[in-house]
Amino acid sequence: MKPVGPIPAGYESIGGELAIGGKRASELVAEAGRTPLFVYSRAHLDVRVAQLRAALPARVGINYAVKANPHLAVIGHLAGLVDGFDIASSGELGFCVAVGIDPARISFAGPGKRDDELEAAIATGVTLNCESEGEGRRAIAIGQRLGRAPRIAIRVNPSFELKGSGMKMGGGAKPFGVDADKVPDLARFLIGEGAEWRGLHIFTGSQALSTEAIIEAQANVLELAANLTDAIGHGCPKLNMGGGFGIPYFPGDEPLDLSRVGAALAERVGHLPASLASSELCLELGRYLVGEAGVYLCRVIDRKESHGVVYLVTDGGLHHQLAASGNFGTVVRRNYPSAIATRYEAEPIEEVNIVGCLCTPLDRLADNAFMPRAEIGDLVAVFCAGAYGASASPAAFLGHGPAAELLV
Amino acid sequence: MKPVGPIPAGYESIGGELAIGGKRASELVAEAGRTPLFVYSRAHLDVRVAQLRAALPARVGINYAVKANPHLAVIGHLAGLVDGFDIASSGELGFCVAVGIDPARISFAGPGKRDDELEAAIATGVTLNCESEGEGRRAIAIGQRLGRAPRIAIRVNPSFELKGSGMKMGGGAKPFGVDADKVPDLARFLIGEGAEWRGLHIFTGSQALSTEAIIEAQANVLELAANLTDAIGHGCPKLNMGGGFGIPYFPGDEPLDLSRVGAALAERVGHLPASLASSELCLELGRYLVGEAGVYLCRVIDRKESHGVVYLVTDGGLHHQLAASGNFGTVVRRNYPSAIATRYEAEPIEEVNIVGCLCTPLDRLADNAFMPRAEIGDLVAVFCAGAYGASASPAAFLGHGPAAELLV
Repeated sequence: MKPVGPIPAGYESIGGELAIGGKRASELVAEAGRTPLFVYSRAHLDVRVAQLRAALPARVGINYAVKANPHLAVIGHLAGLVDGFDIASSGELGFCVAVGIDPARISFAGPGKRDDELEAAIATGVTLNCESEGEGRRAIAIGQRLGRAPRIAIRVNPSFELKGSGMKMGGGAKPFGVDADKVPDLARFLIGEGAEWRGLHIFTGSQALSTEAIIEAQANVLELAANLTDAIGHGCPKLNMGGGFGIPYFPGDEPLDLSRVGAALAERVGHLPASLASSELCLELGRYLVGEAGVYLCRVIDRKESHGVVYLVTDGGLHHQLAASGNFGTVVRRNYPSAIATRYEAEPIEEVNIVGCLCTPLDRLADNAFMPRAEIGDLVAVFCAGAYGASASPAAFLGHGPAAELLV
Repeated sequence: MKPVGPIPAGYESIGGELAIGGKRASELVAEAGRTPLFVYSRAHLDVRVAQLRAALPARVGINYAVKANPHLAVIGHLAGLVDGFDIASSGELGFCVAVGIDPARISFAGPGKRDDELEAAIATGVTLNCESEGEGRRAIAIGQRLGRAPRIAIRVNPSFELKGSGMKMGGGAKPFGVDADKVPDLARFLIGEGAEWRGLHIFTGSQALSTEAIIEAQANVLELAANLTDAIGHGCPKLNMGGGFGIPYFPGDEPLDLSRVGAALAERVGHLPASLASSELCLELGRYLVGEAGVYLCRVIDRKESHGVVYLVTDGGLHHQLAASGNFGTVVRRNYPSAIATRYEAEPIEEVNIVGCLCTPLDRLADNAFMPRAEIGDLVAVFCAGAYGASASPAAFLGHGPAAELLV
């Protein structure tokens, strides 16, 4: 028997079925017209942002990292909740513009920005988080051609990392950002060439569940930003402190203690060095905002036994939920939180393997999980599907196509 | 320094540049209008099929597993070269129909076939490789409703595996196929219910590079098929022996010895047991047919140094080449064969990291590779990109969209 991860707070049951946003799973599927289906919960997004607002000092804004979930309805809903948007491509710029977000609220990071992407960003007034001297020079040249001063911040590759983070984005040689010791010269060069100086972006890692590590990384970020700002000598209009707030996916994972993170940050922000005294501060959060707000629903197509092992074969799979299958950035496969959505209150009575419909042994949603007995037609729910699910999976693999998506 | 995998045979250089199908990489990019670009070589497909025809006994047909590369031009070209097509979804059926393939040449395997997929297959005369008793019952019911006898083979879950294969599809409890000991009863049931009996499908694994393991698995498949056919008592019109032929991806990988595989198979086929004497035989190959025929081309967008390490940042990445990034079915990341396409004949002089444009440390195309010096604008080639590349990668991730594809 292998445990499944913890189901996030805020999901209820109606008539014995998992309910999201007040509607039963089967109703939501009927509404969408098909499975597989990603359901995103407005209520969860609202609660999460409210929790952050309550915990964080008022001065620290919240940016949404669109890459976590670029579903237009999700971006649109967050537009009314958060302060800024971080994009990673001109495609994501298009999504933001499509839902009416002012490009002045947007910043653009990414180590491989093409010229046409720089141009789209500069032309619309998006802030570029510049990742290299070469990119800075290209941005200046494009700005001159367009007759428009590019708005530029520098993404810093810090010499420290976010400890215990799933993805380390600092601490040594990295393709991201500019090594801290090269930042002052580059900043002065860009300012000298007429760029509108927007400040610094320091992203140290992602998916950290250690409250202490987050607190330590934020302290390091503020100290580094102050030192760099002093060295640059042109102030720091805005400091994007990065994010890295993790969510629990697996058995034993504990949520961050947001109030302690907020209290420590308030203490720091209350005693900022002079160089950051008038800086706008923000956190950049993706997964933490949307991850627990999403549920992936798929239908049991077959129930079969092989050598005594029960398989629930669904119409979903790794083509929609690559990370849940254990094939994206993980070495050892563990079970995401999952359940039989249509028998949400039933007692678990059997050990099953919940698999996808693809012809590959990689296509697993839950291994050796203890579940209520499910039959053909039942719905399976995989939780923590709001971030890096639909858009971070190979939807074209084996020709099944993308899942439906619904914000409720 | 970390070596890169072996570049497949058949690639030449023109004017110092990698050439595919007689055209330089830069010409191909100009023709496609953009990077990143998958180029698939007709000549490679032709040569590979010719090698197989020369090595295999004439009686053994070749099926193409569409999942390996569903690009329509590739399927269309193979339609004139191979005998049959194996699909894994009604989406893939649509691709085959779109290029004019007769559904009678198609068989459909997959553990999670939806009712609408069964219906599409039965209505057009596709052979179903039945994966469970439940699926068999559904197919019979749909056939009765349509007034059409479903053409059914049974996919067998054999008790042996293809040794050393990348993905094991036999040898114990599996979601694929029907346990061998349950096959005779199910076959007789389906035949009794009026199905057109099409025989057996036995797939034991994939991506095996051991000639001996392939030979042994084929012998085991023939023996199992004969025993099952005897037990069923209705002959075996067709036996799909599976595939599993691997291609070299990594340093040290050696290609299969096709002539030995063919000779061993000819010996077996020359002395078939009576129960298979009149059976049509085929192999099901995907990766082996198309893998080495594909090259992924992307452009160097930035050249940067971080703490003394050189990064070539490209406009490509794991959103097109997930497997090459080391994030799909592999535990330890190794380098696919790769090169600077526009400096194909230049001497390697420096150690570089070739990365994609995505904001994640997972997005690597070649680590610590020894390469000629490349500048912004150069093209990078990643070989062995013909199978499980474009369609098996998260193209929507970070909003860059799919790569272009070109058959030359």
